[in-house]
Amino acid sequence: MVSTKYQNMLTAKSVIREMAEFAAMRGNEIGYENVFDFSLGNPSVPVPPRFSEAIIELLGTKTSRELHGYSPSLGIQAVKEKITSHLNHRYKMTYTANHIFMTAGAAGAIAHALRLVTNPGDKVLTFAPYFPEYAPYVNLSGAKLEIVPPDMVDFQIDFACFEEMLTAEVTAVLINTPHNPTGAIYNEATLTQMAELMTAKQKEYGHDIFLISDEPYRDVVFSGQNQPYISSYYANTLSCFSYSKSHSIPGERIGYLAVNPAATAADLLVPMSGQISRGIGHNCPASLIQLAIAETLDVTVDMSVYETNMNILYNELLALGFNCRKPEGTFYIFPQALEADAAVFCRKALAYDLILVPSDSFGCPGHFRIAYCIQTEKVERSLSAFRRFVEEEYDKKSH
Amino acid sequence: MVSTKYQNMLTAKSVIREMAEFAAMRGNEIGYENVFDFSLGNPSVPVPPRFSEAIIELLGTKTSRELHGYSPSLGIQAVKEKITSHLNHRYKMTYTANHIFMTAGAAGAIAHALRLVTNPGDKVLTFAPYFPEYAPYVNLSGAKLEIVPPDMVDFQIDFACFEEMLTAEVTAVLINTPHNPTGAIYNEATLTQMAELMTAKQKEYGHDIFLISDEPYRDVVFSGQNQPYISSYYANTLSCFSYSKSHSIPGERIGYLAVNPAATAADLLVPMSGQISRGIGHNCPASLIQLAIAETLDVTVDMSVYETNMNILYNELLALGFNCRKPEGTFYIFPQALEADAAVFCRKALAYDLILVPSDSFGCPGHFRIAYCIQTEKVERSLSAFRRFVEEEYDKKSH
Repeated sequence: MVSTKYQNMLTAKSVIREMAEFAAMRGNEIGYENVFDFSLGNPSVPVPPRFSEAIIELLGTKTSRELHGYSPSLGIQAVKEKITSHLNHRYKMTYTANHIFMTAGAAGAIAHALRLVTNPGDKVLTFAPYFPEYAPYVNLSGAKLEIVPPDMVDFQIDFACFEEMLTAEVTAVLINTPHNPTGAIYNEATLTQMAELMTAKQKEYGHDIFLISDEPYRDVVFSGQNQPYISSYYANTLSCFSYSKSHSIPGERIGYLAVNPAATAADLLVPMSGQISRGIGHNCPASLIQLAIAETLDVTVDMSVYETNMNILYNELLALGFNCRKPEGTFYIFPQALEADAAVFCRKALAYDLILVPSDSFGCPGHFRIAYCIQTEKVERSLSAFRRFVEEEYDKKSH
Repeated sequence: MVSTKYQNMLTAKSVIREMAEFAAMRGNEIGYENVFDFSLGNPSVPVPPRFSEAIIELLGTKTSRELHGYSPSLGIQAVKEKITSHLNHRYKMTYTANHIFMTAGAAGAIAHALRLVTNPGDKVLTFAPYFPEYAPYVNLSGAKLEIVPPDMVDFQIDFACFEEMLTAEVTAVLINTPHNPTGAIYNEATLTQMAELMTAKQKEYGHDIFLISDEPYRDVVFSGQNQPYISSYYANTLSCFSYSKSHSIPGERIGYLAVNPAATAADLLVPMSGQISRGIGHNCPASLIQLAIAETLDVTVDMSVYETNMNILYNELLALGFNCRKPEGTFYIFPQALEADAAVFCRKALAYDLILVPSDSFGCPGHFRIAYCIQTEKVERSLSAFRRFVEEEYDKKSH
């Protein structure tokens, strides 16, 4: 008998993937350039040229074994040292290479972090709206995910709900800022209050509560905005970074887990990550990709395209009567749908070749997500489709 | 409280890693070229030039999104189709791309395979001597590893022991051929008898027993030898391949799981692998590496070096009085130690800068492993160290 657990998981499909598959199918019919595919967070901006150049230079100058030989399971030491310097300089931290574990993107980092700081049956909190993949990350680690209801005012944190749910069984809190799907940034007041509450609860319960910080959009911050460095606020922080967005390389699956040097068991958590990897057949990134990243830590793609796209969409959505908070970063926007059932709303949009993702699976019904990491030209062309959609399906003036 | 399970694992160190660390330390003292480091299976033969050329050509001809964008979690379709053609042509199989799941090397494939075909508490059998990492692979999947004692005659299978241990709780059998650490190849008679026994037991117990075949050394076969394709013998076979050895790229962590099209639930097992990946934060290889592999499926490194090294060592070991079976493939040889306690034997060898791995952790005491994937020149220089070691520490004539 094959595994019951994984066979049962097959029935639950991801709505994001379903929408992306529809977009691909529709693209085969009318040309993909005519499908306004806002479903997936697959960066449109090309990789920085220096990344490709670094690979070519490495291939020409290093030995085969230096490039492709077995790398340490905790990550290549020289790569981790460069990341350490970069983080310490930028965020005034005191990481050493012993606090960095190289991972298969932020997903790999989160999955490892959850296994590091939970024991079977522990609870993990996250905040709606939340990235739906958090559910398998947490639940397959042996812990149990619970969702704190959203702060609908500005997508910060509803502290009354948070405090009520932060019971003694909770050993980890999982946050994401800049935030998918809302584009909100947790501000200093939010982070300070969160740290104070978690510190008080650690003391009250007599055990650690770790903060697992999912930060793939850390560098995707719009002008005038600032993402404070989460780990500066709370010692028991595990930062999960991915180069997917900063370098436009999600397919290469590279990132890291950074353990705050002041965290409990800070010197054990990276070696323990190596033990987790043994059980899952390893999770460390390709050596060539690690080495290329180390050569390009100070570059990022041109993120201004995302801000341009955001402004175009935000202004049009407001003009069309949508209720919508202006994103401060990421490449997502999260407007309220024009009817209560966001799935119905998004299904109607398909007739206009607008591929939007309904918010139900994000734990925050009645909204939809637009992933605008596509070409600006296509965003501009989509506006007339949005207009026709709203005018034909909804009475614009009633909003 | 951090995870008890993973914290406890920190105390058990890998003897292979310990030996490799000693070799590196000693290398700092006397120059690594003077340390006869036979500890690690890190290929010495350079990557095929076409692999590097393929990467450079891809970087020059494909778009950033084609190269580095999100790849499907089951593997890039075009890559899987090429692997399918390659396998079908070479081994007369009928795989489609739906039977291939791209993994982080053979380790990733084995870890996924174990989760696919076991439920919690099931037993998995493997055969001594066995690769020590099988223990965490199996035990952290929720199943339980049991070791069938070795066939000390020729490192095939002791079928009396195997049959006795193949109880109703066993749902998977894990084999490795060409075999680490012995260099033996399971021959046609062994594979036929194994398939017959497992088929009979499936019928008797009324449930599937899967064969998980760990095949990273499939291409490392010496002249006059032949490794039959395992999956041809038994329908319920999951083949776990890695390009680590065929392409000398262990650091790139790329391989695949190939599900026999005649296996039970053959069409479900690859999608289920995708569900497993969700829980561990993904295990699929870097997109650039997948694409480069697809361009170089028909090349391998020059494996003749390993055969040359094997012959040099085998002849010298015989001359020195060692009891030793001639390897048929891999880059390992597994002689009997010259005293009962292999750990003591290997510790004494360190004084001659011979870094050997004692066999206790392989479940077959009294032997040691030599990983001869090093330069032939160094193998030749090591012979006088072996001679001095044996002459000074043991009475050569008594063997």
